[in-house]
Amino acid sequence: MSSRGPYAKGIAKRREILDVALEVVARTGCRNATNKMIAETVGLSQTGLMHYFGSREDLYVEILRARDERDAAEFVTPESGIDGFIAIISHNAQVPGLVQLYVEFSAEATIPGHPAQAFFTERLAWMRRVLVSALRDHQARGELGPHLDLEQAAGLLIGAADGAQQQWLLDRTHDMEAQLRGLWRMIRQDSWQEGDR
Amino acid sequence: MSSRGPYAKGIAKRREILDVALEVVARTGCRNATNKMIAETVGLSQTGLMHYFGSREDLYVEILRARDERDAAEFVTPESGIDGFIAIISHNAQVPGLVQLYVEFSAEATIPGHPAQAFFTERLAWMRRVLVSALRDHQARGELGPHLDLEQAAGLLIGAADGAQQQWLLDRTHDMEAQLRGLWRMIRQDSWQEGDR
Repeated sequence: MSSRGPYAKGIAKRREILDVALEVVARTGCRNATNKMIAETVGLSQTGLMHYFGSREDLYVEILRARDERDAAEFVTPESGIDGFIAIISHNAQVPGLVQLYVEFSAEATIPGHPAQAFFTERLAWMRRVLVSALRDHQARGELGPHLDLEQAAGLLIGAADGAQQQWLLDRTHDMEAQLRGLWRMIRQDSWQEGDR
Repeated sequence: MSSRGPYAKGIAKRREILDVALEVVARTGCRNATNKMIAETVGLSQTGLMHYFGSREDLYVEILRARDERDAAEFVTPESGIDGFIAIISHNAQVPGLVQLYVEFSAEATIPGHPAQAFFTERLAWMRRVLVSALRDHQARGELGPHLDLEQAAGLLIGAADGAQQQWLLDRTHDMEAQLRGLWRMIRQDSWQEGDR
């Protein structure tokens, strides 16, 4: 079976490395999670590790991509809508190393010409699409009124989530979930006008 | 007069360096604005520059501090309230280099033990106090209703501003001012309940 050939083995090894890297970064943070630490845990040399991930930037992008997939699988269902998004932000308080990686690396990647800029630009466009679609589903179910600029509401939710993570890294008493819930309540309220129901 | 002595001269030179650095960073971005460029513009060697600012981190902190002072002087009056805050965010679209510096350096500074962490932690606490006080003034003038968690609203405004800058760096069509105005409208609406007026 071709899925057991060398190519599939390479994919499986990449997957294993990512799972370990995700784990190590979540626990120790991206400054402390060295390539050496990740390589040793998966039984590779650092050169061997770089065979699977060409650069530090490549490894970080793939860690964040794997994390997005895992979060989506764990917290998002067709019905969860914006609550699924808030559940992910709430879960972030359990993985400070990943929040640190995301905040720092996404900021660094805004530099013109940065190798990870395309990833974050596409991720932002993808997040906007996902959230606009979730908001539209809420409207279809009558949980959200008709008076709402969906693009703006999606942008606000993304911005508030990014900003809440920055604040939380500086002040761990900052309640990211409460902040997002407050905004979501305001958005719902804003979507109705007198006479709608 | 002591204000003309060597100490005052040192302060004046620091001020001159900051003005130049602010200008150079705003124009070229913090990765491109080299110490060499700043030193040459103010007629100093790089060693001379480091006599006034001990490290890259120190210089960046002082640039951001000088920028906060300038923005406050230009856009904030006792009556401007949240509109003054939004005017600063709107003005940011004119100074991409400073936005880049702020986003990148504030993210980097969340690393435990970073030399600029105290500056950003204090700045966050200061911003919260300033915004809570501005919101309270809006309430006193009857422009904002009594039903509002002031701390939460301040946190949302700060988070939305930080998040909007991150989005804008990735997508220059993103309208930071519109996003903040949308949130401010929602906060005002949320502050009133039926029967308040």
